[in-house]
Amino acid sequence: MSIITLTTDFGGGSTYQAAMKGVILSIDPVATIVDITHDVPHQDVKRGALVLDDVTQRFPPGTIHVAVVDPGVGTDRAILYAKIGAQQYIAPDNGLLSRLSARIKPEKIRRLADPQYWLPEVSTTFHGRDIMAPAAAHLSLGLDPDRLGPPLPYPAVLSWREVKITEKRIEGEVLEIDSFGNLITNITAEMLANRPADHRVCVVFNIYETWGIYHAYGNQLSGTLCAVIGSNDRLEIAIVGDNAARRLGIEIGTPVTLAWD
Amino acid sequence: MSIITLTTDFGGGSTYQAAMKGVILSIDPVATIVDITHDVPHQDVKRGALVLDDVTQRFPPGTIHVAVVDPGVGTDRAILYAKIGAQQYIAPDNGLLSRLSARIKPEKIRRLADPQYWLPEVSTTFHGRDIMAPAAAHLSLGLDPDRLGPPLPYPAVLSWREVKITEKRIEGEVLEIDSFGNLITNITAEMLANRPADHRVCVVFNIYETWGIYHAYGNQLSGTLCAVIGSNDRLEIAIVGDNAARRLGIEIGTPVTLAWD
Amino acid sequence: MSIITLTTDFGGGSTYQAAMKGVILSIDPVATIVDITHDVPHQDVKRGALVLDDVTQRFPPGTIHVAVVDPGVGTDRAILYAKIGAQQYIAPDNGLLSRLSARIKPEKIRRLADPQYWLPEVSTTFHGRDIMAPAAAHLSLGLDPDRLGPPLPYPAVLSWREVKITEKRIEGEVLEIDSFGNLITNITAEMLANRPADHRVCVVFNIYETWGIYHAYGNQLSGTLCAVIGSNDRLEIAIVGDNAARRLGIEIGTPVTLAWD
Repeated sequence: MSIITLTTDFGGGSTYQAAMKGVILSIDPVATIVDITHDVPHQDVKRGALVLDDVTQRFPPGTIHVAVVDPGVGTDRAILYAKIGAQQYIAPDNGLLSRLSARIKPEKIRRLADPQYWLPEVSTTFHGRDIMAPAAAHLSLGLDPDRLGPPLPYPAVLSWREVKITEKRIEGEVLEIDSFGNLITNITAEMLANRPADHRVCVVFNIYETWGIYHAYGNQLSGTLCAVIGSNDRLEIAIVGDNAARRLGIEIGTPVTLAWD
Repeated sequence: MSIITLTTDFGGGSTYQAAMKGVILSIDPVATIVDITHDVPHQDVKRGALVLDDVTQRFPPGTIHVAVVDPGVGTDRAILYAKIGAQQYIAPDNGLLSRLSARIKPEKIRRLADPQYWLPEVSTTFHGRDIMAPAAAHLSLGLDPDRLGPPLPYPAVLSWREVKITEKRIEGEVLEIDSFGNLITNITAEMLANRPADHRVCVVFNIYETWGIYHAYGNQLSGTLCAVIGSNDRLEIAIVGDNAARRLGIEIGTPVTLAWD
Repeated sequence: MSIITLTTDFGGGSTYQAAMKGVILSIDPVATIVDITHDVPHQDVKRGALVLDDVTQRFPPGTIHVAVVDPGVGTDRAILYAKIGAQQYIAPDNGLLSRLSARIKPEKIRRLADPQYWLPEVSTTFHGRDIMAPAAAHLSLGLDPDRLGPPLPYPAVLSWREVKITEKRIEGEVLEIDSFGNLITNITAEMLANRPADHRVCVVFNIYETWGIYHAYGNQLSGTLCAVIGSNDRLEIAIVGDNAARRLGIEIGTPVTLAWD
């Protein structure tokens, strides 16, 4: 019994994901299908790449993750299969997997080329349903991924602004805003190791600042602005009991600077 | 192991669908439950009928589709079981299945009448949970659908505006707007067979027009208004990389005319 | 094969619930996971308590319900296991289970204390993923709940305004508003037994009133304001074919009075 996950930009109320599930279950009726999210902003490949990097490695070895954020559907962009860590992925070759791949080198990347593992009729606007879903279901039944198509040597890569680290400063940005309005930065716990986390560090963003990096929000007074190391080992900025992004008007991409005297 | 799908107007954040799942799993703990959507607009039977027509035939033979868009709950409207194609359906008899039934003649239609396949206590406001969910779970365990109740000879039928086809013109309308804002019309690929699809065809709606019917959005410049044959073999109008419905202020029911010289 | 449900305030589009599912399936790959809802308003423990009370007892005996509405995450608030009726629960000890527990006395309550049933690394901001999900998965594999930790004698309790009942009046309030905008009160069918339900009863809320308690909305004219006994055996106020909460500007907590001459 295999697990297949879906990550798309279809929107939570859409029926496109159900069409994919129908196709998967028609090929492998006992597959376990798990929704990662269908609320990646439409055609926002970078946000899809972040989701895949954040969540998918939590699944059991062998899980097949299908990701459909695919503005280039119907063009000649490739669709790829990748084995990354113990997980498997099927996605358009537009950089969706490139953030994860920068962290964990893929063991194998193939280009989907053999139409016998697709639906008999392939539309030009919905390869998630017509190519990716059936290919995932065939893998779930035990198909050797090498049968999907030839190696793909140079998958597409997205570029991300790098964190700038000096002796007295770390300059990053807000990478994601979660559903609670917490500001999740690209500054990792690893970058902060061996530096003071107490009142000697000042966290500055937009016109706001806060001192010290705490262990949890829960011990702070409601309404307090504070920085913590969040559940994905990245620096997060939150207002206790409130939505920091909305309250402070912060968007993804806002620079965040940590400074030590 | 059976598959049971749910299509409702409860809203994505509602807990009513979970109550139905609890009832189903209490009768058949190994049923696979798939959400088609819970975001049919409240009490919009026509939109529910379109969803069932668009998506459900993609599922494996024998799948049991439960549809709850039920403004008449608690009145004497019937609840029906239907076998349509290789799929099974349970729905209120208010026309929810009539669009699909117009395309594929039902093999069997029964009226749910035997309360031994319902919950012991039936509320007047939630037959989805008290009648439809348990009946579906009993079918999933192998119950002969003839046991649910007697034949229902004349199920309710909704009427849809027909596409008007002449030598030089096809007059249809926007039938659905998907989560990307694409305008999905009631004009099918079949109606367009044997007609020119190049610059000789003009697609007109509201104050807008576009020439030619393309194969995919992906090859167009961002911001281009274009018509394509979409993934359900119907004419769709899109703005590449944008939300056409919102940008142009188009609603369901807007007339769409194709004209050839 | 066990069933594990999730009730959270993460929001429907969040990816946090997927991280929990990945953790669960990594420990028990054949667990059946059901979403109750992820749309409890952020950090609204009372609303979470209502959802658990309304829905969870519908599931098969032995189901494991994980509830994460957890503003105190990272503080020293306990996490508890409870057996209530035939169902099992894992939740922070903040009163989430106290509404259900007031109705059905828990058979057993334990405090989660043994980290061997948690993830090896526990963050300070996401105990749902790091403690509750793995503990649930271990239970699903057959772990004796006594192994999770010692008894917890005094779990946290939330207080709810009580319904005031006199000979001529019942004074309650709007407890929940469902996705249709129906106003669900804390006045139960039981409280109304042996009292007239016809035109002799007047239902008053805000500046509005309606006479009589009906059996179903469906037989009323569209636009009618009416009171019915809803699917959870509580008095509901609805406008037929409309959203009563939005139309009349009613919020949770609005007093509702029933008066008899």
